[in-house]
Amino acid sequence: MMKNVKHAKCVKCGKIYEAAPSITSCACGGILDIIYDYEYIKTKLTKETLAARRDHTMWRYRELLPVEETTEAPPLRVGCSPLYEAKALASQLGLRQLYIKDDGINPTASLKDRASSMAVAKAVEAGAKVIACSSTGNAASSLAGNAAAAGIKTYIFVPSRAPKGKVAQLMTFGAVVISVQGSYEETFALSRQAIEKWGWYNRNAAVNPYLSEGKKTVGLEIMEQLNWEVPDYIAISVGDGCTIAGLWKGLKDLYAIGFIDKLPRLISAQAEGCCPINRAIETGGDWHPMEENTLADSIAVGVPRNADKALMAIRESGGLTVNVSDSEIMAAQKLLGRTCGVFGEPAGVTGAAGLKKLCGQGKIPAGATVVSVVTGNGLKDVANAIASCGEPISIPSDMGLLLEAFSSRSIIVE
Amino acid sequence: MMKNVKHAKCVKCGKIYEAAPSITSCACGGILDIIYDYEYIKTKLTKETLAARRDHTMWRYRELLPVEETTEAPPLRVGCSPLYEAKALASQLGLRQLYIKDDGINPTASLKDRASSMAVAKAVEAGAKVIACSSTGNAASSLAGNAAAAGIKTYIFVPSRAPKGKVAQLMTFGAVVISVQGSYEETFALSRQAIEKWGWYNRNAAVNPYLSEGKKTVGLEIMEQLNWEVPDYIAISVGDGCTIAGLWKGLKDLYAIGFIDKLPRLISAQAEGCCPINRAIETGGDWHPMEENTLADSIAVGVPRNADKALMAIRESGGLTVNVSDSEIMAAQKLLGRTCGVFGEPAGVTGAAGLKKLCGQGKIPAGATVVSVVTGNGLKDVANAIASCGEPISIPSDMGLLLEAFSSRSIIVE
Repeated sequence: MMKNVKHAKCVKCGKIYEAAPSITSCACGGILDIIYDYEYIKTKLTKETLAARRDHTMWRYRELLPVEETTEAPPLRVGCSPLYEAKALASQLGLRQLYIKDDGINPTASLKDRASSMAVAKAVEAGAKVIACSSTGNAASSLAGNAAAAGIKTYIFVPSRAPKGKVAQLMTFGAVVISVQGSYEETFALSRQAIEKWGWYNRNAAVNPYLSEGKKTVGLEIMEQLNWEVPDYIAISVGDGCTIAGLWKGLKDLYAIGFIDKLPRLISAQAEGCCPINRAIETGGDWHPMEENTLADSIAVGVPRNADKALMAIRESGGLTVNVSDSEIMAAQKLLGRTCGVFGEPAGVTGAAGLKKLCGQGKIPAGATVVSVVTGNGLKDVANAIASCGEPISIPSDMGLLLEAFSSRSIIVE
Repeated sequence: MMKNVKHAKCVKCGKIYEAAPSITSCACGGILDIIYDYEYIKTKLTKETLAARRDHTMWRYRELLPVEETTEAPPLRVGCSPLYEAKALASQLGLRQLYIKDDGINPTASLKDRASSMAVAKAVEAGAKVIACSSTGNAASSLAGNAAAAGIKTYIFVPSRAPKGKVAQLMTFGAVVISVQGSYEETFALSRQAIEKWGWYNRNAAVNPYLSEGKKTVGLEIMEQLNWEVPDYIAISVGDGCTIAGLWKGLKDLYAIGFIDKLPRLISAQAEGCCPINRAIETGGDWHPMEENTLADSIAVGVPRNADKALMAIRESGGLTVNVSDSEIMAAQKLLGRTCGVFGEPAGVTGAAGLKKLCGQGKIPAGATVVSVVTGNGLKDVANAIASCGEPISIPSDMGLLLEAFSSRSIIVE
């Protein structure tokens, strides 16, 4: 019995469910949302108690997380990723202040570790010995790593396009990996059938309502790191919709318990070649499936499974949408690398690419304070980075050849 | 004028140098060691003041670091990597307690960030606008990232065998990268000539004595994380020699200021195909160059540039040496992944591979407490991981085919 949680509620039909560890989506097809008892939480959590905590993981926000008081935090150290102030980039983009939240610094190198840590905690509560999911790659590798550390077996379904870095992680963590020759949608479909057949604990973020509760810790951290001073905008890439929905949930939690007195506007960045959620916002209607035409594999989701929650989050926040091309994404990867020393994967830097585009279009006021979330490490997808950056100077060990190489490339040595 | 530092001293001839930001190795060819005023440090640093600090980076140990009091910590958040207790693996190996220090969780995904953060701090003190180094890859990518974040330009020399992940980082961070068609030794030689010619700030760990002072923070952290209870052994992979020397320096610092009352024994793990330092220990003589025959690229160093400090560290600690084959290294990568959820690069898990071998040989007492340091993230070198783990099950989205695939691989679903 969780004292801080009232129940789960369908975001579509409003039906109420008891918040058991294994609840999945509503009978109507809607996703569930976890509803908290904020009055209770306010009696337990203050800014002061939080500041005094030694736990530097996402589990420091325990009162806002849907777990039993006795449930242990899983072994891997997830969360409390760095928030860097990017002064040079802010001035390039004409912003007053810009912060980069580098969530590639997580045990398996993506924000998805936040959801997977939660999935492992809930699977343990449910007494499950096996967890399964389908994923474009990061949810998969993070589940495999977090579950391995906790001694739990995993079955993982990824589309065959998943980059090698993510597959290498999965195999090393000992997951049973099924690489599905097809789209993410087809991958999801097979995982659903298998999960039904064998009764595995389901880490599919669109089905398991606890996962955005893990992801929301990125929002909790940003606000604590900014000393509860709310930025004007938070930019983030959007695929399945679960991450931006989680981010928004965290911000609303903080508002509900009085830790912040206003809410930022979200910037939802998608790839031009796959932007069903942004298109729905832009047209003011429902979302429709799209093809998955982008190299940003983590957000190449043509049939977003968490669209309802994501659309609600963007709309509630008075959010902006922005769609970027693959070349704008790869340019943002270099820009963040060169100005901030942060190497994000393509989907990871799509939020920054969108922010840059909006700044160029004059859609962000010059005095604005913005946070841009990098959702995954560039080492996950090295092939695209190299294709984008080009090859290094390649010569034998000879000073004459070095001078020639510099001169032919117009490199002026300082 | 650093109040906590007395001077620099050649480890070979004993000559004393003023600890200026740009000192390099001794005229006799020996490497310098930074000598501290421990009596002064004791008046400034206590376990209590340290425990109260909010700085969760390597710079929390500032009194033990060779920088001016006014020097700012560079921007990237380096250090304070997790130390995981590995209960399942400990019992597999017959150890009382085993801890895994995952230094792949650093901004550019390796322990080398500790040295690069220090290099950037010292370059700023020296007023340098450019830093250069040669490296098997990790020192390079960490320098490029840490310098980019600080707005400093880098020239980087890597051997052409450097894995793609590391090259992708370098290019993204905007370094001028020279890929040298030859061994690490030839790479080092070209970098030395170029550094002399252009007067760049030198981040070569064997030349710049401040770098092991950055690396030593891994030892400081391990001890603080263990609440100053000294383990019996610390296992780590050895290439150039600078990392194990740094680790030892950190431990000796803590002993000198009375934070710990004994010292652990070091376990120096090298690759069978490139183990000049271990061979010197084993034969009791000097080291001799070896070929660089191992897939663990970060420790494929045939001419170790920090051999003197490393040999001294291993000998002083009453250390053990162990040489492992490439297949033992790749087996350790899987073992750490499956039991701990930690994915290390080949050189990163060589310490664990060595530990496993020594346990198998009965050379580690059953009641021992051991720390094994993982020095770099497996995402740096995905090709070797995939070659070692094999490919996933690859099928279209079809339950019948999934059942067949499980059955043909004898996978029994729980």
